[in-house]
Amino acid sequence: MNPYERPNIRRMQGYQPGEQPSDSETIKLNTNENPYPPSPAVDRALLDFAPEQLRTYPEPLANDLRTAIAKHHSIDVDNVVVTHAGDEALRLAATTFVDTGGSFVSTDPTYSLYPVLAQIQDAQMHTQPLTEDWSLPEDFAAHARSAGAQLTCIVNPHAPSGTLIDYQRLAEIASQISGVLLIDEAYVDFAGNLAAKAGPRLLRDHGNVLLLRTFSKGYSLAGLRLGYLLGHADLIRPILEKTRDSYNVDAISQALGLAALQDQDYARKTWAAVGWQRDQLALSLEQRGLYSPPSATNFLLATIPPQLSAQSLYQGLKKAGILVRYFDTPRLQDKLRISIGTEEQQQRLLTELDRLIQAG
Amino acid sequence: MNPYERPNIRRMQGYQPGEQPSDSETIKLNTNENPYPPSPAVDRALLDFAPEQLRTYPEPLANDLRTAIAKHHSIDVDNVVVTHAGDEALRLAATTFVDTGGSFVSTDPTYSLYPVLAQIQDAQMHTQPLTEDWSLPEDFAAHARSAGAQLTCIVNPHAPSGTLIDYQRLAEIASQISGVLLIDEAYVDFAGNLAAKAGPRLLRDHGNVLLLRTFSKGYSLAGLRLGYLLGHADLIRPILEKTRDSYNVDAISQALGLAALQDQDYARKTWAAVGWQRDQLALSLEQRGLYSPPSATNFLLATIPPQLSAQSLYQGLKKAGILVRYFDTPRLQDKLRISIGTEEQQQRLLTELDRLIQAG
Repeated sequence: MNPYERPNIRRMQGYQPGEQPSDSETIKLNTNENPYPPSPAVDRALLDFAPEQLRTYPEPLANDLRTAIAKHHSIDVDNVVVTHAGDEALRLAATTFVDTGGSFVSTDPTYSLYPVLAQIQDAQMHTQPLTEDWSLPEDFAAHARSAGAQLTCIVNPHAPSGTLIDYQRLAEIASQISGVLLIDEAYVDFAGNLAAKAGPRLLRDHGNVLLLRTFSKGYSLAGLRLGYLLGHADLIRPILEKTRDSYNVDAISQALGLAALQDQDYARKTWAAVGWQRDQLALSLEQRGLYSPPSATNFLLATIPPQLSAQSLYQGLKKAGILVRYFDTPRLQDKLRISIGTEEQQQRLLTELDRLIQAG
Repeated sequence: MNPYERPNIRRMQGYQPGEQPSDSETIKLNTNENPYPPSPAVDRALLDFAPEQLRTYPEPLANDLRTAIAKHHSIDVDNVVVTHAGDEALRLAATTFVDTGGSFVSTDPTYSLYPVLAQIQDAQMHTQPLTEDWSLPEDFAAHARSAGAQLTCIVNPHAPSGTLIDYQRLAEIASQISGVLLIDEAYVDFAGNLAAKAGPRLLRDHGNVLLLRTFSKGYSLAGLRLGYLLGHADLIRPILEKTRDSYNVDAISQALGLAALQDQDYARKTWAAVGWQRDQLALSLEQRGLYSPPSATNFLLATIPPQLSAQSLYQGLKKAGILVRYFDTPRLQDKLRISIGTEEQQQRLLTELDRLIQAG
């Protein structure tokens, strides 16, 4: 052990990202990427990007993209900060609002990055178990309040269950807690138009709500690292002007993100296709005895029947060149999280599953 | 004031980046960008980049680039972490090594981002004034030790003076202090081959030294946001595995950075050209009574003669479409920091200076 690391850093474990195989043969259904490529408008923006532009610093606030995002959500530009993907947005929320020793609240299960960010911040992580059907418990806000939550993070639609929490419920929670409520809407693009509009509507009445959006999933740009936060200007300003790295969004991401956002037709088509394939896959899995809660995302959390082992299935699929996600934690040990793929990929998955089920 | 911001964030001022005019007419000699475009190899890498690659997450550790960096410096890959430019590298050093209330030491003057990072970390910033000729004072290490420095940052070659500190002196300081010594080598590419090799050589004997490098200046890629840290594996590991955002370097930056690094011939030519123009500009300024210390960087810190005002000159140049940097702080108020431009840009600068000097 080296004597330089801070004690909280020395104690902690880092975040474990899903496997990223370098071969192109593997079917990746493990990190919830969009199965469709980015919009052709992104291809054009990349072709149009003059490398000479890289010589100088990027526009510090990504203002063209920021303005387009504000317009897209019919809000003011002061309510938007563009970030280096959702990861930076979450880290900045912790940096800006959670004191050392302060309280960071979420659900259990939740996005496994949250406890990591709490530890980096040397804060206390408090998690409240979700109910049997993955809803928020009745007393969630009361618990957050008594834990002194400076930041409460709820993934909606929820990961890894895929379920959607009603925004009326989130509005109540925002009113009942004392700190910032960050709704991590990484997957909301797949949840339908109504859900996608509900979050921004919450901002009108709730000065303590931050919404996180990302280009990684809905816009097929996980490789680019681009996201944003929406919220009251009083929440956005300290992030924009103080805690964010000054040039946090590179020039190419600003250009490509703008192109992707402006091609809503294309994006919507991929969301609809993913939704259709999700429902098909859910049905096909059910026919094999693997049930999943109703998903508003681009993944399913399938429960593996007791006569089979989720871990063995995960390993069997991996051997067959198909990656899905297995979480070795109490409530998830009998489940697999499966990202929605193309029709061909899902057919391959079902074929291999049948083979493994018969063999097991 | 909103009640959610942490007290240390509420109190602080954010970093003020240099002006980024959106027009292409302005001559930008204010943020130390390389006057030459990126290598043609970067153009080719950008053309070769298939947008479909953006669909999936990037390689989390940027391992191809990381391996090339290790090879370039003849060190092990475990001694390298690739970062989202130098800003992220500095922030991660603070996050990983400086406790809340801990001590962050630097010189005065120094890179104006350091006190901002100390405030975000809620740490104490201690600065030691440089001597008259911008060298480190004799008792620098003793002061750092008595301040309990967990992180000591020295920019070398120094900004904003441009002077180079001898690496033997830095080795002594590394031995004498108790915390981490980060040598911010953002400008070392312009300091000649000997200086560029001296830092990595320090790493052999000093387990507490981190070196910061960036692609922003030497490789003309400020718009891309790419840099790295070199150091003992015990210093690199917690950054690599714990405090860094998991996918901190996007896929395009990984590809373009690799192309830039591998075209050393081109990079060296731009460094030589910048060095030649720097020496020409220093001479031309001296002929006009504006003296600057010997610079090992791509900028000059020119003292404005007492009969003229640095601030007025800055404003006069700005009106004429030429941006230079003016710092309104006690030791810098009579000086201008001027980035090295192309020959044509420098000729324009001198013409306008002559006009303003005659008018003043």
